[in-house]
Amino acid sequence: MKVGIDMGGMSVKLGLVNEKNEIAGKLVIPTRLDVPAREMVLDMAEAVKTLLAENGLTLSQIQGIGIGSPGTVDQEEGTILYSNNFDWEDVPILSIMREALGPVKLDIANDADAAALGEVCAGAAEGAKNAVLLTLGTGVGGGVIINRKIFRGGVTGGCELGHMVIVENGERCTCGRRGCLEAYASASALLRMARKAAAAHPESLMNQMCGNDLEKINGKIPFDAAAAGDQMGAEVVETYENHLACGIANLINIFRPEKVILGGGVAAQKENLTAPVQKKVDSMCFGGRHGKIAPIVTSRLGNDAGIIGAANLIED
Amino acid sequence: MKVGIDMGGMSVKLGLVNEKNEIAGKLVIPTRLDVPAREMVLDMAEAVKTLLAENGLTLSQIQGIGIGSPGTVDQEEGTILYSNNFDWEDVPILSIMREALGPVKLDIANDADAAALGEVCAGAAEGAKNAVLLTLGTGVGGGVIINRKIFRGGVTGGCELGHMVIVENGERCTCGRRGCLEAYASASALLRMARKAAAAHPESLMNQMCGNDLEKINGKIPFDAAAAGDQMGAEVVETYENHLACGIANLINIFRPEKVILGGGVAAQKENLTAPVQKKVDSMCFGGRHGKIAPIVTSRLGNDAGIIGAANLIED
Repeated sequence: MKVGIDMGGMSVKLGLVNEKNEIAGKLVIPTRLDVPAREMVLDMAEAVKTLLAENGLTLSQIQGIGIGSPGTVDQEEGTILYSNNFDWEDVPILSIMREALGPVKLDIANDADAAALGEVCAGAAEGAKNAVLLTLGTGVGGGVIINRKIFRGGVTGGCELGHMVIVENGERCTCGRRGCLEAYASASALLRMARKAAAAHPESLMNQMCGNDLEKINGKIPFDAAAAGDQMGAEVVETYENHLACGIANLINIFRPEKVILGGGVAAQKENLTAPVQKKVDSMCFGGRHGKIAPIVTSRLGNDAGIIGAANLIED
Repeated sequence: MKVGIDMGGMSVKLGLVNEKNEIAGKLVIPTRLDVPAREMVLDMAEAVKTLLAENGLTLSQIQGIGIGSPGTVDQEEGTILYSNNFDWEDVPILSIMREALGPVKLDIANDADAAALGEVCAGAAEGAKNAVLLTLGTGVGGGVIINRKIFRGGVTGGCELGHMVIVENGERCTCGRRGCLEAYASASALLRMARKAAAAHPESLMNQMCGNDLEKINGKIPFDAAAAGDQMGAEVVETYENHLACGIANLINIFRPEKVILGGGVAAQKENLTAPVQKKVDSMCFGGRHGKIAPIVTSRLGNDAGIIGAANLIED
C-alpha cells in the first residue's frame, strides 16, 4: 500500500493505492494559498495521518508517499523550486513532510509527469513502456515516460512540452514567449478562438449555445456546434485540431512514444477529438511509414491519474 | 582500443580510438552508392581489416566497432531502417559486418547521436552528463545525451530534432512537412535567405562577395557582409539567429541539457554565432531565472566527433 498525493490549485487529493493500482481510500483537503507554504505542507502531512487512520493503517504499514506538484520540482533536493499556480518558491516540501511524519519513503514529481506515470501503470497506456501525455486544460502540461519511468531531462526543469513554440512570433503565452503549443492547444486557447469566431459571426450557433454571453462559452460548445452543422464551430475545431496535431507530431518525432495520451478538459471529446487529430498526425511524422506512429488516446484514469502516478513514484 | 566508423554521403571515415579518446589511426574510403548496400558494407569491413593491419593490430586486440550512420537506425536489430541520403532501406549492417569479420562486439547509432556522444566524451561538452547537439548543415541533425548515454526515445526513430515545426505552415521541409527547424536553421536555409535578400537588394555587399553569382553564395557570406556593415547581410543573419534561438529554446524547455553544442558548416562562425543566439535564448526559456539555461557552444571535435562518438558506443 502506498499513498499518492495530487496537489491542485483548488484542492489536494490524497489516495491510498494498493498493489493492483486501485484507490482503496481517498481524502480531499482544500489548498490554502493564503498561508505560508510550510503551513499548507503541514496540512498535507496531517491529512496523510487522517487518511491512514480512517483506513486502519499506520505509517509503518505503507511503502511510502509520492507527491505530484504543479511547477518545477527538484527531485533530488525534494523541493518545489517554483510554482506560478501556488506562487511558491523554493519550498523544501519533502523535508517538511518528514519533519511532521517521521521516517518514511518520500518522492516528488511534477503533476503532469505523475499523471503520465499513472496512465502507464494503470490507465490508457497500461502495458506501454514509453508514452507522452498532454493535458489540455488551462495550460498544456506534459509528461514523458521512457522505460516505465518519468523522463525528467538533464538538469531540473525539463519536459515543459507546452512551452515548445509551434508558431514563431505567434500568440502571447503565459510564459512570456509567443507561439507556444500552450497558446494554441490549451482549453483556454480553444475558448479564445471560439469567442473570437462567435463574436465575428453573430449567425453562428455558438452564440445561441452560450445564451449570447461569450463569457459562458465552454470547450464543449465549438464541438457541439460543429456536430450540429455550424460552419464557424467546425472551423474553430479544425483550427484547434491542426495546432494540436502539429505539437503532437513534433513530440512523436522527438520521443517516439508507444502511446500519446490526451488529458484535461478538451480530452472529454474522446474519439471525437482523437480520430481527426490522429489522421492529421499520421501525415506529419518524420519518415512516414518507416517510423512507428503512436496511437493517440484519451486519459482513462481522469482525475485519479495524478494520485496513482504519484503513488507509483515509490518503487516496490 | 576501439574502432569508430562515421558513415557520410561522400566518404566513410574509420578511426582507431584509444582510451584517452584520441584517434590513433585513420582511414577514409569512398561511399559507393551505385552498388547494393551489402557491397558497400563489405567495403567497410575490409577497411576495418586494413586499418587494423596498418596499425599492427588484430581484431581480437580491439574492444569492438561502433558505427554512426545517417538515417533511422534500429539498434537492437542492428539495421539501418531507412536512410534517404544513401537511399537504403532495411540494411542489416551489423550482421553483414559480423559475417565478414567474425565474432566482434558491434554497435550502431544515428550519426548525429554519435557526434553528440563524441562531444560529451572528449569535446565541447566534456564532463557534462547531459547535452543536446544540433548540426547545422545541409539539414539539421540532432543528438541528445542523457546521463552520458545516447537518448533514443521510446520506439525506433526518435530524436529527429530538426523535424520539430517552429513555424506552422511555414517553409517546405525535405521531410514533407512545412515549417520544420531544418527549413529555417540549416545551412541550406541560411543560403536560401541570403540568396533571396541579395537578389532583392542589388546594392547588398553579398552580391559583390559572391561575384554576382548567387549560386556561389556560401554560409560565410551573410556573416562577412554583416560584419562589413551591410544591412541586408545583418538582416539575414538576425533572422537566421532568431529561428535557431527559437528551436534551441524549445529543446532546452524539453531536455534541459547542461550544454547545447552546435556543429556543421554554420557553426564555423563560433562565438560570432553563439553569443547573439545565447542572448536570445536566455530571454526565451521557460521559468526564466528559475530554470538552468545551458551555455551554447560550438563543436570542438569537428569532423572527428562522429568517429570518437561511434567508438564510445562500445562500452568498456
